[in-house]
Amino acid sequence: MHVMVLGAAGMIGRKLSQRLAATGEIDGKNIDRLTLADTVAPEGPEAAFPVETVTFDLCDPADVVAMIGRKPDIIIHLAAIVSGEAEADFEKGYAVNLDGTRLLLEAIRAEHERDGYRPRFVFASSIAVFGAPFPTPIGDEFVRAPLTSYGTQKAICELLLNDYSRRGLVDGIGIRLPTICIRPGLPNKAASGFFSSILREPLVGQEAVLPVADTVRHWFASPRTAVDFLVHAAALHTEQLGPRRCLSMPGIMASVGEQIEALGRVAGDKATSLIRREPDETIAGIVAGWPEGFEAKRAESLGFRADASFDDIIRIHITDELDGKVG
Amino acid sequence: MHVMVLGAAGMIGRKLSQRLAATGEIDGKNIDRLTLADTVAPEGPEAAFPVETVTFDLCDPADVVAMIGRKPDIIIHLAAIVSGEAEADFEKGYAVNLDGTRLLLEAIRAEHERDGYRPRFVFASSIAVFGAPFPTPIGDEFVRAPLTSYGTQKAICELLLNDYSRRGLVDGIGIRLPTICIRPGLPNKAASGFFSSILREPLVGQEAVLPVADTVRHWFASPRTAVDFLVHAAALHTEQLGPRRCLSMPGIMASVGEQIEALGRVAGDKATSLIRREPDETIAGIVAGWPEGFEAKRAESLGFRADASFDDIIRIHITDELDGKVG
Repeated sequence: MHVMVLGAAGMIGRKLSQRLAATGEIDGKNIDRLTLADTVAPEGPEAAFPVETVTFDLCDPADVVAMIGRKPDIIIHLAAIVSGEAEADFEKGYAVNLDGTRLLLEAIRAEHERDGYRPRFVFASSIAVFGAPFPTPIGDEFVRAPLTSYGTQKAICELLLNDYSRRGLVDGIGIRLPTICIRPGLPNKAASGFFSSILREPLVGQEAVLPVADTVRHWFASPRTAVDFLVHAAALHTEQLGPRRCLSMPGIMASVGEQIEALGRVAGDKATSLIRREPDETIAGIVAGWPEGFEAKRAESLGFRADASFDDIIRIHITDELDGKVG
Repeated sequence: MHVMVLGAAGMIGRKLSQRLAATGEIDGKNIDRLTLADTVAPEGPEAAFPVETVTFDLCDPADVVAMIGRKPDIIIHLAAIVSGEAEADFEKGYAVNLDGTRLLLEAIRAEHERDGYRPRFVFASSIAVFGAPFPTPIGDEFVRAPLTSYGTQKAICELLLNDYSRRGLVDGIGIRLPTICIRPGLPNKAASGFFSSILREPLVGQEAVLPVADTVRHWFASPRTAVDFLVHAAALHTEQLGPRRCLSMPGIMASVGEQIEALGRVAGDKATSLIRREPDETIAGIVAGWPEGFEAKRAESLGFRADASFDDIIRIHITDELDGKVG
């Protein structure tokens, strides 16, 4: 089985590639070829089968046709411009997040019409397809009414994925990932960055800034669980989905206060004392429009499983990123 | 004020053009120029101000740029490939219903960036953005999960309209029209055709075929009320809408049995006796996936008004199409 990961150089893409290289299978079927693609060459993990790393431009029709011409059995599409950049650069966001995905689906349709090709297509969508006002929790039948161009682009791709799948052109599934926490690496300027940094920095003895109130609630999954979701989506027997192919993933709802309590339980008061409260009205305003939590009934009934607890989300980071050490 | 109607040669487009020519105003502001555009030259009604009829191709970027270059203050966009054709011809449906609308929005964005141009843009969406399973009535916050390519294209355009409006590039409003009844003219092959023909043909002494059970329920507006909706949308003070710019219109929910009872009340037993029951499983299957009714709270609170009753829907046809005579 040939598996292709698009956007393989990103954080989730790298972890997914490592997982696929290590397990060598999806749904009990052996992977015999792995193609990792991104705008910059992704790292190729060690594996018992050929791993090819390639660069490609999702906005270049010829590149996209060439990628699909490799006829992967499973395509996991993570490539995207992130939310902040899609908001700042209207044209780039639409070109990559909407038109790039449409080029992929159109290239698949062309191969389908030639020989019946119909790959599994796992699309990384986002909870940004939802916009305030919304209930907490947000149910599976709640309107997708995004408040950003990024969320709009993801919501449109969900609609396309449903229609192409309904017509039998592709075997699509879209999963709306919770906010990934703890995101490894350096602090970044994303408005959501503090959800990770207030944990990540104290775990290595550094100060972190908290720009919002302790009562702010949000929806989380660890990177390990996000990879679980993608692999489970690649393995799912999609006849269970019916025409609605896109699912909100289960997650852990936690307030900032609950995040900090979990940090105290796992890493002690020394860690929590490193969080410095510096209210930032701009960030607080942005975050106020974000979903707090979901009732992910459909995904749960299809076997998608959230992290066990927020404490576990922190322990996963300590295990996977810090060699088990706090300090 | 310069008003432009795109898709002006269609049934609703013609009635809307006549209305605008007759009243000469929208929201108390005088119309001083009316441009009627379609793929074939629309009829130009008599008016007290210049009415220009033009042909254009919604799929031709140069044509679209030229249309928007006329800088209408209000654009009413009715141009579309109908549901059946969009399902039969994948490429044409996406080219016209999605890419054509996007060309319009992009041409507006280009003018906006040049000089701040920001027209009112009234988009005719459809209840086809909803797909089974759904509750009856369908509320304003229910997921748009279309089961046709036409519904997908309309749902995508709604998302684009919201995003372009949120960014201040256009002053958009989308309205989801109920099924128009009684549609004037000859019987057509649309699966929904019988909802009109079982009334229209008996009103002129001709037989009509009913392919579904009397219990089938659906959601209706008269052509006159559909025009009211479009004019009201063109006049609306859109700051009331917030970021969700697309609305399900109010309508009359009626079962086929209730349609026939109304026909009996308005036109007598002679009319109802002309309906011949010929069950057609294919049509029954298609119609089973269609919405039955809506709770159009937002639209009602914004002043959109449904027909008074199904009897009235029949009377409007008799007045507007049959010179008041039943035969």
